[in-house]
Amino acid sequence: MSYGDAMTARTRSEERRAEIVRAALEVIAERGYRGASLAAVAERVGLTQQGLLHHFPTKEALLVAVLQERDRWDALPAGRLRLDLLASLVEYNAMRPAIIQTFSALLGESVTEEHPARAYFTERYAGVRAGMAGVLRAEYGDRLPSGLTPERAAPLLVAVLDGLQYQWLLDPESVDMASAFRDFLTLLGEGEGDG
Amino acid sequence: MSYGDAMTARTRSEERRAEIVRAALEVIAERGYRGASLAAVAERVGLTQQGLLHHFPTKEALLVAVLQERDRWDALPAGRLRLDLLASLVEYNAMRPAIIQTFSALLGESVTEEHPARAYFTERYAGVRAGMAGVLRAEYGDRLPSGLTPERAAPLLVAVLDGLQYQWLLDPESVDMASAFRDFLTLLGEGEGDG
Repeated sequence: MSYGDAMTARTRSEERRAEIVRAALEVIAERGYRGASLAAVAERVGLTQQGLLHHFPTKEALLVAVLQERDRWDALPAGRLRLDLLASLVEYNAMRPAIIQTFSALLGESVTEEHPARAYFTERYAGVRAGMAGVLRAEYGDRLPSGLTPERAAPLLVAVLDGLQYQWLLDPESVDMASAFRDFLTLLGEGEGDG
Repeated sequence: MSYGDAMTARTRSEERRAEIVRAALEVIAERGYRGASLAAVAERVGLTQQGLLHHFPTKEALLVAVLQERDRWDALPAGRLRLDLLASLVEYNAMRPAIIQTFSALLGESVTEEHPARAYFTERYAGVRAGMAGVLRAEYGDRLPSGLTPERAAPLLVAVLDGLQYQWLLDPESVDMASAFRDFLTLLGEGEGDG
């Protein structure tokens, strides 16, 4: 096999993996992780289950890849996120229900016993709270207009983001996630005279 | 069978049903609904699967009973709920992680396709938002201090309740659900001069 051939084979394998991860995202959105089967994912990409196992030896390995995929599309360079960008992110999320559905389903499942995504979410939320506290500090300094510290407001900000997603996924006609989130930002900014 | 015997048999059957529902709550907390099996519930109450099916002919029938159980313990006479009682309810919830875990897992799963609890949650959330708008109106009138209407603040209140539950279930050492919820009430009340 020439160097060029080896590169092509590697690229093909990477493309195949990406395709499998996308299929897994869909299947988890439909059935949850515990309800998802490797057979269903394999079928969606036209592979045998054996063929799928070549790329992801276990269901958990596939889950890890799905969670890494989330981190990839969620990643923002440290210090680049601002409160107003967060509102735009919510607007953007409202245009991609499938991916929000996948991660809302996974978050829900993660609180069940010994769920393989539990450690991931526990660690991720600690990081997200710290990141949001940083965003709030950049906006308001050490005290928000309400007197709350950024560290105390951060879990509320994260809770609103997650909680609105469930209400919106269940009833998109009744819940306008983006405008509700802007209302929350108004609450946070109260006292500045711009509320 | 005498009238007394019939009554006893009925009471026994009701007690058995209640016992099965409690076992189902536990199994769902551990495995989610899709991961729960009737066999696991039956085993926990010392019944055969056939014996369980006598009380609940399908897994969905058992789920309906579990959701009704939630409505029973959550029920408050209309007009009796107040914002400060809600803070006490969150404190109370923090003492019963198992039941919060069951319903957080079910809410998460409910956004997956054709989940049997989806219609229940969609309808329930519409009702809860309306109820919370009523609570906010009783407290603040037609405008909150921030200028938001009770109807616009209600989805945020519900989102905070749900979102904090996930963070707390994943990391009870780091997240104090009750005090975070009180912080949110401070945000809502901002502008009154008591914030």
